Amino acid sequence: MANLFGNALTLAVFGQSHAPAIGCTIEGLPAGYAIDEEQLQRFLDRRAPGKSPTATKRKEADKPEVLCGIADGVTCGAPLTAIIRNTNTRSHDYDELRRVPRPGHADFPAYVRYGGHNDIAGGGQFSGRLTAPICIAGGIAKQILERLGIRVVAHAQRMAGVDDAPLDPMAYREEQERAILTNALPCIDEHAADGMQESILAARSAGDSVGGIVECAAYGAIPTGIGEPMFGGIENRIAQMAFGIPAVKGVEFGAGFASADLKGSENNDPYGMRGDRVAPLANNAGGCSGGMTTGAPIVWRMAVKPTPSIARPQHSVDLTCGSNAELAVRGRHDPCIVPRAVPVAEAVCAFVLLDALLQDGAAPRVLDEA
Amino acid sequence: MANLFGNALTLAVFGQSHAPAIGCTIEGLPAGYAIDEEQLQRFLDRRAPGKSPTATKRKEADKPEVLCGIADGVTCGAPLTAIIRNTNTRSHDYDELRRVPRPGHADFPAYVRYGGHNDIAGGGQFSGRLTAPICIAGGIAKQILERLGIRVVAHAQRMAGVDDAPLDPMAYREEQERAILTNALPCIDEHAADGMQESILAARSAGDSVGGIVECAAYGAIPTGIGEPMFGGIENRIAQMAFGIPAVKGVEFGAGFASADLKGSENNDPYGMRGDRVAPLANNAGGCSGGMTTGAPIVWRMAVKPTPSIARPQHSVDLTCGSNAELAVRGRHDPCIVPRAVPVAEAVCAFVLLDALLQDGAAPRVLDEA
Amino acid sequence: MANLFGNALTLAVFGQSHAPAIGCTIEGLPAGYAIDEEQLQRFLDRRAPGKSPTATKRKEADKPEVLCGIADGVTCGAPLTAIIRNTNTRSHDYDELRRVPRPGHADFPAYVRYGGHNDIAGGGQFSGRLTAPICIAGGIAKQILERLGIRVVAHAQRMAGVDDAPLDPMAYREEQERAILTNALPCIDEHAADGMQESILAARSAGDSVGGIVECAAYGAIPTGIGEPMFGGIENRIAQMAFGIPAVKGVEFGAGFASADLKGSENNDPYGMRGDRVAPLANNAGGCSGGMTTGAPIVWRMAVKPTPSIARPQHSVDLTCGSNAELAVRGRHDPCIVPRAVPVAEAVCAFVLLDALLQDGAAPRVLDEA
Amino acid sequence: MANLFGNALTLAVFGQSHAPAIGCTIEGLPAGYAIDEEQLQRFLDRRAPGKSPTATKRKEADKPEVLCGIADGVTCGAPLTAIIRNTNTRSHDYDELRRVPRPGHADFPAYVRYGGHNDIAGGGQFSGRLTAPICIAGGIAKQILERLGIRVVAHAQRMAGVDDAPLDPMAYREEQERAILTNALPCIDEHAADGMQESILAARSAGDSVGGIVECAAYGAIPTGIGEPMFGGIENRIAQMAFGIPAVKGVEFGAGFASADLKGSENNDPYGMRGDRVAPLANNAGGCSGGMTTGAPIVWRMAVKPTPSIARPQHSVDLTCGSNAELAVRGRHDPCIVPRAVPVAEAVCAFVLLDALLQDGAAPRVLDEA
Repeated sequence: MANLFGNALTLAVFGQSHAPAIGCTIEGLPAGYAIDEEQLQRFLDRRAPGKSPTATKRKEADKPEVLCGIADGVTCGAPLTAIIRNTNTRSHDYDELRRVPRPGHADFPAYVRYGGHNDIAGGGQFSGRLTAPICIAGGIAKQILERLGIRVVAHAQRMAGVDDAPLDPMAYREEQERAILTNALPCIDEHAADGMQESILAARSAGDSVGGIVECAAYGAIPTGIGEPMFGGIENRIAQMAFGIPAVKGVEFGAGFASADLKGSENNDPYGMRGDRVAPLANNAGGCSGGMTTGAPIVWRMAVKPTPSIARPQHSVDLTCGSNAELAVRGRHDPCIVPRAVPVAEAVCAFVLLDALLQDGAAPRVLDEA
Repeated sequence: MANLFGNALTLAVFGQSHAPAIGCTIEGLPAGYAIDEEQLQRFLDRRAPGKSPTATKRKEADKPEVLCGIADGVTCGAPLTAIIRNTNTRSHDYDELRRVPRPGHADFPAYVRYGGHNDIAGGGQFSGRLTAPICIAGGIAKQILERLGIRVVAHAQRMAGVDDAPLDPMAYREEQERAILTNALPCIDEHAADGMQESILAARSAGDSVGGIVECAAYGAIPTGIGEPMFGGIENRIAQMAFGIPAVKGVEFGAGFASADLKGSENNDPYGMRGDRVAPLANNAGGCSGGMTTGAPIVWRMAVKPTPSIARPQHSVDLTCGSNAELAVRGRHDPCIVPRAVPVAEAVCAFVLLDALLQDGAAPRVLDEA
Repeated sequence: MANLFGNALTLAVFGQSHAPAIGCTIEGLPAGYAIDEEQLQRFLDRRAPGKSPTATKRKEADKPEVLCGIADGVTCGAPLTAIIRNTNTRSHDYDELRRVPRPGHADFPAYVRYGGHNDIAGGGQFSGRLTAPICIAGGIAKQILERLGIRVVAHAQRMAGVDDAPLDPMAYREEQERAILTNALPCIDEHAADGMQESILAARSAGDSVGGIVECAAYGAIPTGIGEPMFGGIENRIAQMAFGIPAVKGVEFGAGFASADLKGSENNDPYGMRGDRVAPLANNAGGCSGGMTTGAPIVWRMAVKPTPSIARPQHSVDLTCGSNAELAVRGRHDPCIVPRAVPVAEAVCAFVLLDALLQDGAAPRVLDEA
Repeated sequence: MANLFGNALTLAVFGQSHAPAIGCTIEGLPAGYAIDEEQLQRFLDRRAPGKSPTATKRKEADKPEVLCGIADGVTCGAPLTAIIRNTNTRSHDYDELRRVPRPGHADFPAYVRYGGHNDIAGGGQFSGRLTAPICIAGGIAKQILERLGIRVVAHAQRMAGVDDAPLDPMAYREEQERAILTNALPCIDEHAADGMQESILAARSAGDSVGGIVECAAYGAIPTGIGEPMFGGIENRIAQMAFGIPAVKGVEFGAGFASADLKGSENNDPYGMRGDRVAPLANNAGGCSGGMTTGAPIVWRMAVKPTPSIARPQHSVDLTCGSNAELAVRGRHDPCIVPRAVPVAEAVCAFVLLDALLQDGAAPRVLDEA
């Protein structure tokens, strides 16, 4: 059940990069909800490749077909399965990779685990393409959360060594989200976007790639006390799901690793009355304490390593003859996947949050259209 | 099931800080194994408070009683339940805390979640004391892993702003483990330990606290290809479990957040032949790729925030009258819990690894004493 | 996780018959509930041996100690762990059984599964004694259900070839429950109880044992539409849990196996208006359709095989020398365990129902004492 | 996760009767296995309607399309998703049913549970059509089991009041399986098949329907000690899964409900040496004890209620106006679904058994074609 995630709301992801299709099954969606397909498509398009000069030129139609879970235009309580056909035919570009595992990819562990039967084409089930189904689920979750007054926003907080302005940790700011959606790269600061783009293009010219950090926040009508203790907390769940994104190598909440260098008196978020409501007055906790929501926005970050597929020659081995070998990964590859990881972070956050709300009885099981 | 973790090997934690007992149930241990109780006790003692001048002076007897799961001196295939009696009587020191939630603690979210019925004494189920049962499970897992030729080691890589030397990311070094176990603080570098201790004592004098980073590695006979894709990978599992430790705010693997600033050509771990074995020649991946082990040591870190309980007055609210209030947490508290988190990191890593080995058929279900 | 059951409410059972203790951990109980310990003890006493001339003479003190999950006298939201100490010391009566597996018991499969390390004393983890923890969980669930207006009742519908009167399938009848609790055996019909007792004593005199059928019903304020489709239905869950009771060999709902011989026009339960409420007018469905409650009482039965431990000599094998052997099980054993299985059936039904209500948001997460 | 089943091998079912498609995702299949698609199709054809005069005349093409999980012709370790397109267009025959729930169907509980948004067409997710995906999973499991030397066979043991001969409880008999596959109805005894057919046709003429009992057995190289204690036993799992088949109202193992009337000395299965192997000499246990396999064939039965859709007028209610109503279900319906349930029982048994073998390390994770 490694491809399954969630509690009251579950996501099961399936597919390989060059199989006939990829897709997902979502169980536990509130009944009675009319999915806005155009909004979902716009969300998926943010993940799709081929949009900017910094991305790969491949064209993939990430157009989901909903096979079930809908009746008379609304969610009907049955599991919702959606698939995306893979238009890339199964190529023979991968013969070399079957012999010579790519550094930074899952090729070699998968070869051992599956006795050489793993699907190597396009990375098989380990391809970043599998984040598209995560975005289907997360995109639907985002829509439902918006109906409940909750907004989830992410951006490239750092890319190719260039920092963006941070998301406001205390309150949603519409201008931040607008900038992220309209700038050439998903950044708040237009100048940061320019600097990032320059660095990415330089890396590509050098046959190399770069990484970065995605920051994500959930704002709005998040009730306090949502999420569970110990291994079932909001942090545990976001981390478990986020590490399912290929290339993610770190996850932190609020002050995160920086909190290791703070004093308790600096790091503790004090409480104060805001009208008749108790509110955290700072957010080093990233909106989570003891696994539960504190009432502050949920703020977290994930480290995205540089794209492992690079044109530069690398040291590897030839599995057929057991000797050292040199490898240059052919084909077009994103010199930086951080921009495409931004909507995936939103998807993860939205999915986890809606799941927790449903599990805790804080979101309705039937969501009639008004 | 938020207090449950694992797949082939499961851990269920129970208890509150001032309830009659805390404990855990472990299911799926190999049958036929004679637990070395002294070795387990020594491991638990590393987590226990009151050892050094930097820790709280409270005395807790973390002495587990095994209620079941053993027959004729060896594990018998039945769930193993062990409990630790809480010797601290349920005090009335907590009346103020019931009214005024402590910043940095789970008091307020728990109050909302459980309608005020949560156990506030000693932090209840959210207390760091609940890491003792995790150490019971992890301590047993460590013993079994050692039988299988795998060693798990952790240290305080950074504390109170002072860095320790790093664990060797490529191979176990006995002198590192010995230093960690014998230095005044669990560090490789004796001088780092001295510097940390000084900073911790200074923070305590100021009524404050400090945090740090724990680094952990698993070395030795770790097969390649262990762990599952997507949401079931070694990284996902370690992260999910580690965020169950109160105070952990970030988890990273290998180069982690630093990989965000590397080029692909720098970050990718090349492969080479080592005799007739394929081996990663570097370990920026922290031993995990696509959720699976690469054959290199598993290396990860967790950020530990500064102890939230501090003597300094803090801003909070009085829940009974809905007004702002000031709070000074009384009692003795660790000015730094990082040293006590070190064995817990080992426990998490050992438990996840043994679970994955059992699940993948790479560790025997019956482990007869030789 | 074979010893774990449930969704929003989970039960983890642990222990062996002659280990220091048996017990369970219950997670997900509504917070704020004061368990009536006397009522729980009375419920556990119904399962305890040594009450009637038809039962074994062994004395076991099924007195639970609650280790955690309670604060200030009410459930606090943390997992509740309760244990029962085993007063029977670990005997050496079992040496022969280690060599010669008892027909009808799990001895031989367990021997193979656990490489001979399984706990043979008293049946180890396969002992009927493990139904005591199930009754702790079910007894608490029964109390909470009663607060919600739901009553769960079971009786020996057939025992030693003698039939009892059936439970009313349409409505709770207090006189039925009273008779079950006061008759010498848990039957509605006093004369049936007499006949059963006679047959049981006759079997015992012959060194033999008898079986029977337990019928169980849940009445009252059961909402319609509780439970999930496919593998998560009320029937699936009751069956999964009931087959965890040693000696249960069949489970059926409503007309059950008899429905195989009915026509559709006979078996279908028609609907009718009862005031402004839609109600099933018959209950061949046993209150479940498509996995969900229909609004009618939940009615189900489980077949209990005759006690496998009998004084009569039986054919078995000697595992040490691989030869045929004869076995006469020594010690005192119930000639019929059906009466003791009656409260266990109630426990199973109550636990499943409360779990489903909590999961579906039909029972409150906080249950303040009024 | 109500539509999910299994442990090491999992099945997730999705779809509604009149949605674009139904299907399933299977995770955990051994890698390297080439599915025999023709053999799978023949197995699915046994479940398909329209074969015999006793079945409905509707034509459904149960032809699965495999979307992923296969690479280079063999299972590749990734989840296998297969779908069956629904060729029946979404009809308007169901408008009345939306108002007037059908007795014996899940219409009314589903209406309440999903706030009226459930898919009513063809029974939606509660349709027997959802057993087709179960048969895809079970059909593949059967093929793999056959490679491991295990055969799973089922038949209509009783139908419309007529008994078939029983399956041999001790050993596979090829002539029994051949008869089941070639007789007009899936029976061992040709004359029984004739009698059943007559009774079914008589019921249909009367606008009515009949039920029956399916018996299933798994024979061959089943290791002893497979399956888990308590809630994870072979019986628990088969029962949980089998109750997911619409119309199943009872499940029993071995002597089942009949064991309630046996003496212990009659019901206990003695052991004896068969060469150097310990073997049960009878099989009242149905091959399971303490949740684990005994080494004898697994033998179980499920009660199938008469088809609830009947032409005869029935009492129901009109949900729109809250008044009593009369309903005659239009359309063509099987007067008896027992024959179509026979391969589904095999699918359930094969899936559970392969799952248990994989979980217990008794079936290989990589199954190279020889």
